[in-house]
Amino acid sequence: MPFKRYQVAPVWRAEKPARGRFREFLQCDVDIVGEASVRADAECMMVGLEVLAALGVPGFVMRVNNRKILDGLLERVGVPDRSRHADVLRAVDKLPKIGRAGVVAELEAVAGLDAEQVARLFEVLELEVTRVEHLPALAALFEGVPSGMRGVAELTELLEIVAAAGYRDAVEIDLSIARGLDYYTGTIYETFVSGREEFGSVMSGGRYDELLGMFLKQSIPAVGISLGVDRLLSILSEMGLVTSRPSVADVYLALLDDGGFGAMAAIGRRLRRAGLKVEVAMDAKRLGKQLKAAQRRGHRWVLLAGPEERAGGRVAVKDLETGDQVELPEVDAAAWLLERVRG
Amino acid sequence: MPFKRYQVAPVWRAEKPARGRFREFLQCDVDIVGEASVRADAECMMVGLEVLAALGVPGFVMRVNNRKILDGLLERVGVPDRSRHADVLRAVDKLPKIGRAGVVAELEAVAGLDAEQVARLFEVLELEVTRVEHLPALAALFEGVPSGMRGVAELTELLEIVAAAGYRDAVEIDLSIARGLDYYTGTIYETFVSGREEFGSVMSGGRYDELLGMFLKQSIPAVGISLGVDRLLSILSEMGLVTSRPSVADVYLALLDDGGFGAMAAIGRRLRRAGLKVEVAMDAKRLGKQLKAAQRRGHRWVLLAGPEERAGGRVAVKDLETGDQVELPEVDAAAWLLERVRG
Repeated sequence: MPFKRYQVAPVWRAEKPARGRFREFLQCDVDIVGEASVRADAECMMVGLEVLAALGVPGFVMRVNNRKILDGLLERVGVPDRSRHADVLRAVDKLPKIGRAGVVAELEAVAGLDAEQVARLFEVLELEVTRVEHLPALAALFEGVPSGMRGVAELTELLEIVAAAGYRDAVEIDLSIARGLDYYTGTIYETFVSGREEFGSVMSGGRYDELLGMFLKQSIPAVGISLGVDRLLSILSEMGLVTSRPSVADVYLALLDDGGFGAMAAIGRRLRRAGLKVEVAMDAKRLGKQLKAAQRRGHRWVLLAGPEERAGGRVAVKDLETGDQVELPEVDAAAWLLERVRG
Repeated sequence: MPFKRYQVAPVWRAEKPARGRFREFLQCDVDIVGEASVRADAECMMVGLEVLAALGVPGFVMRVNNRKILDGLLERVGVPDRSRHADVLRAVDKLPKIGRAGVVAELEAVAGLDAEQVARLFEVLELEVTRVEHLPALAALFEGVPSGMRGVAELTELLEIVAAAGYRDAVEIDLSIARGLDYYTGTIYETFVSGREEFGSVMSGGRYDELLGMFLKQSIPAVGISLGVDRLLSILSEMGLVTSRPSVADVYLALLDDGGFGAMAAIGRRLRRAGLKVEVAMDAKRLGKQLKAAQRRGHRWVLLAGPEERAGGRVAVKDLETGDQVELPEVDAAAWLLERVRG
């Protein structure tokens, strides 16, 4: 301990399908089990932020909240009936979507809050709290509300770590985030691609210290983050940032004689073992047709070897960009191609 | 077309669990769709054989048969009642497990074959047919049995390709293989790890030219191969060939001050971006304890930097194998470590 794990696998959810909302999707999970400090929360967040940066996502913001701040909010507002907590937080969560008036209506109608309670709630919600520097003002509103104070302390420590590690600009506080109320106990986060917020969060998670205890004899602290691969891919496709190549192969081995497929596969094997990606043609169609097909699939290099060339240990390599063709001994082909493909 | 795809994903099966037989397991599939020639069958087989070689499996044999040979066998034996074909082939499939006497008993009792039919069946089954050179003898027995002749021709062409491509020794013919009778139409193969045959096949597949037509408007030829990752892992573990490392990290960043986690994460980020695998300690336990934990987890290199060193842009790197410790500027740490870690 701490036990750190990751998994990339399909998951399913009974949801109404929509743009970027799938019933089956590929999820990439990272979790840290057995570490109670927010240092683990920070590590999960930083893993996620590194992944988005590595994928070339041009702009994104991770919004962070803490379940204890939400608990403090309910305590401060005075909602003693625990069965109404979820109603209040669900209404709060809709603030970015339906605005203040919508939330107020829902708080009164569904959660049964009175005007004074609503006012006490918005005192907190309308405070500008997006950066760690704003947290002392929030702490002041939580004077005498221990859970709120603990939440502010955790969020402060978390954001200081993330800033020290170089991720300050990618993270901001959002007190309206209230997801996973059934299991999150501390830090909660969501991540939005800038300009594509309507797709929903592409990467979410939080601390779930009580969840493992439901399945084990002891309670074990845990925190995790999940990236929705398909949703992110939808967004990047819509932004024109996904270049889809018809083939990943570096070299196309044309087939000049149907009976030569085994011998060409042997050449392919040697090129692959040298580190090249190779596609071996399966049909000895007319060479012109094969070259056109190779061009259409985005191959630049085509290797040619008929029965006589193979018997002599020689191959030709054609550069479809320039039209140039060189002949060389088969044993030199891998090095020659690697230099051009990788170099 | 041909369309080539692969997928690695968990699959499920309602099976009685046993050693190497799981109800949920990870399967690695490769398929080629739209190519009717056995060149595609050969490519699937060669992909699988390359994978086993790359995984370091010390010995393995892919056993190959052809559905048309099985059909020819039934035709030659004279089993006009198609509803009995599956019974006959299921009995044949058990030959390696229950031997000739067991198969004969089952052929008579379950499939209703008479003594002459059984004899005609074993004329074929007891022919030594393991290599391509043996196939002419089999063809002779199929004189006047068109499906059998076609099966022999396909198998001959397939094995010639595989031999020409350099995989001759990894493949042998096994006429008793009769898996997937509901969908395989041509080539069928199974793969066994030498000395661990009792685990069953680790990699199987074949040609299923009629299956896609059940779901599409047109019939499309297709062939595939599936590697059972968990079963193979069970076998390799039992053979002591899986070395499990407690950690994959190249460098362990000790934590000398709880408040320094963010700064250490920043150092970790720079090392990772340089290509190192890094673990950052989460708790500022006593250094001796951290070094022991690092040793237990198999880390050789430990990076140390307290508040003063970090302020001065310096770090220390300790080699747990020799006990040596060097100090160097933080900006040089990545290159210094990469040289030692990657060799």
